[in-house]
Amino acid sequence: MLKLDFHPSGRHFLQIPGPSPVPDRILRAMSLPTIDHRGPEFGALGLELLDKIRRVFKTENPVIIYPASGTGAWEAALANTLSPGDRVLMFETGHFATLWHKMARRLGVEPEFLGLPGYEGWRHGVQADMIEARLREDSAQEIKAVCVVHNETSTGVTSDIAAVRRAMDAAGHPALLLVDTISGLASADYRHDEWGVDVTISGSQKGLMLPPGISFNAISDKAIEASRHNRMPKSFWAWDEILEANRNGYWPYTPSTNLLYGLNEALDMLLEEGLDHVFARHQRWAAGVRTAVQAWGLEIQCQDPAVYSPVLTGVVMPEGVDADAVRKIIYERFDLSLGTGLGKAKGKMFRIGHLGDCNDLTLIATLGGCEAGMKLAGVPLAGSGVTAALDYFAQHPLDAK
Amino acid sequence: MLKLDFHPSGRHFLQIPGPSPVPDRILRAMSLPTIDHRGPEFGALGLELLDKIRRVFKTENPVIIYPASGTGAWEAALANTLSPGDRVLMFETGHFATLWHKMARRLGVEPEFLGLPGYEGWRHGVQADMIEARLREDSAQEIKAVCVVHNETSTGVTSDIAAVRRAMDAAGHPALLLVDTISGLASADYRHDEWGVDVTISGSQKGLMLPPGISFNAISDKAIEASRHNRMPKSFWAWDEILEANRNGYWPYTPSTNLLYGLNEALDMLLEEGLDHVFARHQRWAAGVRTAVQAWGLEIQCQDPAVYSPVLTGVVMPEGVDADAVRKIIYERFDLSLGTGLGKAKGKMFRIGHLGDCNDLTLIATLGGCEAGMKLAGVPLAGSGVTAALDYFAQHPLDAK
Amino acid sequence: MLKLDFHPSGRHFLQIPGPSPVPDRILRAMSLPTIDHRGPEFGALGLELLDKIRRVFKTENPVIIYPASGTGAWEAALANTLSPGDRVLMFETGHFATLWHKMARRLGVEPEFLGLPGYEGWRHGVQADMIEARLREDSAQEIKAVCVVHNETSTGVTSDIAAVRRAMDAAGHPALLLVDTISGLASADYRHDEWGVDVTISGSQKGLMLPPGISFNAISDKAIEASRHNRMPKSFWAWDEILEANRNGYWPYTPSTNLLYGLNEALDMLLEEGLDHVFARHQRWAAGVRTAVQAWGLEIQCQDPAVYSPVLTGVVMPEGVDADAVRKIIYERFDLSLGTGLGKAKGKMFRIGHLGDCNDLTLIATLGGCEAGMKLAGVPLAGSGVTAALDYFAQHPLDAK
Amino acid sequence: MLKLDFHPSGRHFLQIPGPSPVPDRILRAMSLPTIDHRGPEFGALGLELLDKIRRVFKTENPVIIYPASGTGAWEAALANTLSPGDRVLMFETGHFATLWHKMARRLGVEPEFLGLPGYEGWRHGVQADMIEARLREDSAQEIKAVCVVHNETSTGVTSDIAAVRRAMDAAGHPALLLVDTISGLASADYRHDEWGVDVTISGSQKGLMLPPGISFNAISDKAIEASRHNRMPKSFWAWDEILEANRNGYWPYTPSTNLLYGLNEALDMLLEEGLDHVFARHQRWAAGVRTAVQAWGLEIQCQDPAVYSPVLTGVVMPEGVDADAVRKIIYERFDLSLGTGLGKAKGKMFRIGHLGDCNDLTLIATLGGCEAGMKLAGVPLAGSGVTAALDYFAQHPLDAK
Repeated sequence: MLKLDFHPSGRHFLQIPGPSPVPDRILRAMSLPTIDHRGPEFGALGLELLDKIRRVFKTENPVIIYPASGTGAWEAALANTLSPGDRVLMFETGHFATLWHKMARRLGVEPEFLGLPGYEGWRHGVQADMIEARLREDSAQEIKAVCVVHNETSTGVTSDIAAVRRAMDAAGHPALLLVDTISGLASADYRHDEWGVDVTISGSQKGLMLPPGISFNAISDKAIEASRHNRMPKSFWAWDEILEANRNGYWPYTPSTNLLYGLNEALDMLLEEGLDHVFARHQRWAAGVRTAVQAWGLEIQCQDPAVYSPVLTGVVMPEGVDADAVRKIIYERFDLSLGTGLGKAKGKMFRIGHLGDCNDLTLIATLGGCEAGMKLAGVPLAGSGVTAALDYFAQHPLDAK
Repeated sequence: MLKLDFHPSGRHFLQIPGPSPVPDRILRAMSLPTIDHRGPEFGALGLELLDKIRRVFKTENPVIIYPASGTGAWEAALANTLSPGDRVLMFETGHFATLWHKMARRLGVEPEFLGLPGYEGWRHGVQADMIEARLREDSAQEIKAVCVVHNETSTGVTSDIAAVRRAMDAAGHPALLLVDTISGLASADYRHDEWGVDVTISGSQKGLMLPPGISFNAISDKAIEASRHNRMPKSFWAWDEILEANRNGYWPYTPSTNLLYGLNEALDMLLEEGLDHVFARHQRWAAGVRTAVQAWGLEIQCQDPAVYSPVLTGVVMPEGVDADAVRKIIYERFDLSLGTGLGKAKGKMFRIGHLGDCNDLTLIATLGGCEAGMKLAGVPLAGSGVTAALDYFAQHPLDAK
Repeated sequence: MLKLDFHPSGRHFLQIPGPSPVPDRILRAMSLPTIDHRGPEFGALGLELLDKIRRVFKTENPVIIYPASGTGAWEAALANTLSPGDRVLMFETGHFATLWHKMARRLGVEPEFLGLPGYEGWRHGVQADMIEARLREDSAQEIKAVCVVHNETSTGVTSDIAAVRRAMDAAGHPALLLVDTISGLASADYRHDEWGVDVTISGSQKGLMLPPGISFNAISDKAIEASRHNRMPKSFWAWDEILEANRNGYWPYTPSTNLLYGLNEALDMLLEEGLDHVFARHQRWAAGVRTAVQAWGLEIQCQDPAVYSPVLTGVVMPEGVDADAVRKIIYERFDLSLGTGLGKAKGKMFRIGHLGDCNDLTLIATLGGCEAGMKLAGVPLAGSGVTAALDYFAQHPLDAK
Repeated sequence: MLKLDFHPSGRHFLQIPGPSPVPDRILRAMSLPTIDHRGPEFGALGLELLDKIRRVFKTENPVIIYPASGTGAWEAALANTLSPGDRVLMFETGHFATLWHKMARRLGVEPEFLGLPGYEGWRHGVQADMIEARLREDSAQEIKAVCVVHNETSTGVTSDIAAVRRAMDAAGHPALLLVDTISGLASADYRHDEWGVDVTISGSQKGLMLPPGISFNAISDKAIEASRHNRMPKSFWAWDEILEANRNGYWPYTPSTNLLYGLNEALDMLLEEGLDHVFARHQRWAAGVRTAVQAWGLEIQCQDPAVYSPVLTGVVMPEGVDADAVRKIIYERFDLSLGTGLGKAKGKMFRIGHLGDCNDLTLIATLGGCEAGMKLAGVPLAGSGVTAALDYFAQHPLDAK
């Protein structure tokens, strides 16, 4: 029998950019007895959840909750709005944008992949001007959707979605705007309605601080209208039956009851704290972590300070250092999990998650593990990042609620 | 803030045919801290799980685990093996067979729906001879798959899958055999390999005693071969990338880590007890519950004793009694959830789940609640079912392991 | 390694008169991280607890909470109020009164043990007139305390404490009144101030629905005054330092932090429901259980209906039947724990607990297990107790809060 | 209703020298349903526990487990071995030795308090030569017991108990040796039998990593013999009835069932890891923390390196700095609880706990919080302790088991 309790002493430090550490309060809520998903209490829970989740997406429109992980919500967004052969414009911000692009191809959509070239291209956010230029060229309006990643988990870049909307409006193009904020929601500021997003995709295991397993589509009227006519075969992901059942707080098939208990608790925690406070908390952590990276004399993956992610920071290793070898030392010596470099960034960098159920000292521990591990791996450091971050946190108190 | 702890005193009795009550041992396992789904411990867990789950399906072939609920696994089975326009033969055993049929149509497949007529048709299992006759007619072999439900959750009928396989063989027809045992697995005997099933669909929230949220496809070589050439757009459900990542115990996208912890615990519980003992346990409970129904002088929904379900029993109300009104009284007065009549059975019957984390006294409590509730509702009863079941359980001890 | 999860399928039925089943809500509260017992949050928790617990004892005076089980609180009551050689009057209601008497002797007190004779004597409550008569004889006022058990857990008799107070007043005797309501508090009506009790002793694992481990002394001014001058050596149990530290919500030594979390939750549950509703709930359960015993044609241990316990019911076996052999069959066949006969009642009866986190169907299950087990053991029964109780519960709904 | 979940984001750092952070594995074990403390499973659990706990005390003799917190076990040791008026020799190592001395006086024992003078006296361990000299003077053998604290929680000094035993033997004195290792057991090496200790007192909430609430007396034959004749009134604490009931794994009164579940888990964790490894782990943490204190240019409370505690380190503030004001800043700004200075050390120092469920990064976080907090409080520091400790941990790997 496998022992699930892997670590012999003390808590493992899970500082990957999701799944994020799950607060005890949420784990406790998830351990409540499963109830009848067709009974009256479930309906009350469903209505409450569907109302509260809207506030996190900042939308007056419906939010679909899937009993499936985030990748499923990507597919749902495409399957409900597009037809086989439809052209879509996607922007290559990093590995997850690339995976979404690959999914679109598998589903029979014709994606066009804009982006800056090479690995260096992954160190910037979405270039709204490139999107605008491409849309202006599309006088036949063959492009049915623009797909961008808000917080690119593989790089630590949080793109400016409002700028993308402005670009689309400037081009006068009717394409739908589909945005993945799986790792941005409830950590980075996000405004579904204000930014004119048609489908926002998100997941549970990042800013919502839940285990993975449920995911979301926030949808606009225009997206719903598209879903009535598109020709992609869809059933599990189809919005229509879910919207119908959701009116009374139910789902057309069995929902993830216990994860929904956790979601209810997470939403209470976030809304009680206030989203602005949540965002400020993450921005401050990110600033502290970047202060450490700078003190080490290392490069941050994201090269444009305007789009630094509040959720994670990519730390670029000096030429010749294998970032994964460094991660392995840190993991084995300090029981600290960091994110690996993905795709074009493989081996070049590692990622520090600073989201969800953290606090200053969690991050000091994390930076300490990184610092000691890099030294053990022979990475030359200019100075101590952990003391720089300590000073930053000490000098920049987060105002009490 | 909604209070999730709905019931003021004592444990709610959740005796619907799934989700089944989750053992504390599994809830505790699920509350372990989420780990990095790309780290070494996860790989070890994944390999262990993928090995143990095969034993429950009784297969040497791979079992796909989806981070999605059971309805998704239905879609996965279709999306991996069929192409738009393919003809499939489905058998109408009840409401869930009907929903699967509806899904097939939404996905662009051309299902043909065999079955016995009317509500009475729902009181029997799959008629293998009807399938054989239909397949013999299909000399052009246009039918690509036969889809049947093993344990029909809406009626309490557990069809004979081996007979379906024999019928297909007798007809010499090459169609794939797709079987839904979402509510049968780990409660009723099931043999993926021996019965020549090509895709077996199952879920977590029934015999596996987990909350809903993960689901399964056990697949044959023939099904894998079909998946290489079929033309249904597929990405999230696609077996190929999952099989590839599973070699090392990982998934191509984020799995439901904490539900997998629960699955690991559930598999240990089931395999330690021994599947034969698990099946005998459920058969005995079912026999006790049927003894009660007979003592009440009521009809069992399933009219063929050869296919009585070990998982649930449908209790048919006398003409003129609204089964849902009875359920409501039982729920409100005795904090006991029973399954509603679905589809053609709506209002005619209710369903008692006797699966998963139960014991004799749980069922005595359940039958007691039913008996008292029916009396309160004015249902005429021939005798006491609860004492009949008590006698049955007393006289038929389950041999110790 | 011992497996702590003893029962292979379904929940064990723990229907002994304490420890009572612990609600999940309390178990979850107890699993919160331990905090610094000298930090500011702890002080806030302590003050809140000390306030709420008073309401359950119905006192305006302090309640001492010990990090020790109930037997310790017995000792505390004696050690704070008496001196070696002091005479005390104790009443033999059953086994626990006898154990308290034994403790008094071990501590060097001179207890006098009033009571009705023999086993039959244990089938009645405290006889206030006997106490009054004895106190009237004590013209020298040598008796320093009268010690009685409110709810005698070994017999299912809940004595009339107000009558004892009236008897003491009638005799004009200044002795202190010490009352054990370890198994009565929060299930049976109890009024520390109104009944003029000087020290009330209670514990956590009964009506408060907590695991065992903390216990209580509710104290009067007169008791506090006695504690300033008595000569029993005392330190751990001494009220003075605890009262001092409690002013700010702290304890002079380490309290049982996590059990206090559970206590806080239990108090919220009880006070939200309302104590009168809690008492009515237990009275109704007790009446249902007695209906079953009467239908079986068996005797209830308590022979005076005025003092039937709402917490537990003793079921007397016919002459020649070993009650413990019956209990063993019930335990092994039905995973149901009942209370054994203690002391003079050993082998003659078993005890059914109907307290704490129960509901109607829990008790139906319990009575079902008893009925089937007694039949298996060859106990002749006049009729079905389980159906009689079902009818009772159906005909006597507990009004909603 | 008080919210028990006090901290808004991330886990609180509980780095006081006990209660120590409780591992999730233990919290989960404690949340198992309470069972009948007189049933067969409980007996099996009891026997297993009583066997395993002996290995942690390194004794072949019995260990008594009390359902009471550690202070109670102090009283138990005195109450079972001494009589009113007995002379005992106690050594003032710090605050807890002082409290024990106070308790002895309250219980009517005549303690003599040896020690080095003043606050500086609290910066050393037990002086065995002083004990030897005093015992040699006691030619009438009026001293019945020598009472010392092994790990003085208030100062971070771990005295040499073997040296005390040698001193007593050298003096040829028959007094009993009573040792408090409440905060030493299972963190610091301890050998009840080898060191000839007669009563060892310990508690649950330190090295055993449990919440507070149970405590221990490990006893020698000589102590048991003394308990047969001593004249201190005793009942709850009396060893005789407990030893008798323990033969079958039971207790004479209700034990703390759920804390015993946790104890069972804790013992499995410790014995699986191996006590030597546990001790080495704590020694290494202590060395890392002292490295930090030295880098800060501050004094360690303990002035004798031979008796540095592996469990906690006292950090002395420079003259004029109020250590509690520093602690308050650290607590409020970094959600980190440290131990306060107690008794003679009040305001002069704070204490860092490095015991139980910790790891390197937990301590780096702790030291980071201390460092930043001291800077904010204006404490002049010579250098960075957190980087010094990081280097220490990196350069001194703990060998894998």
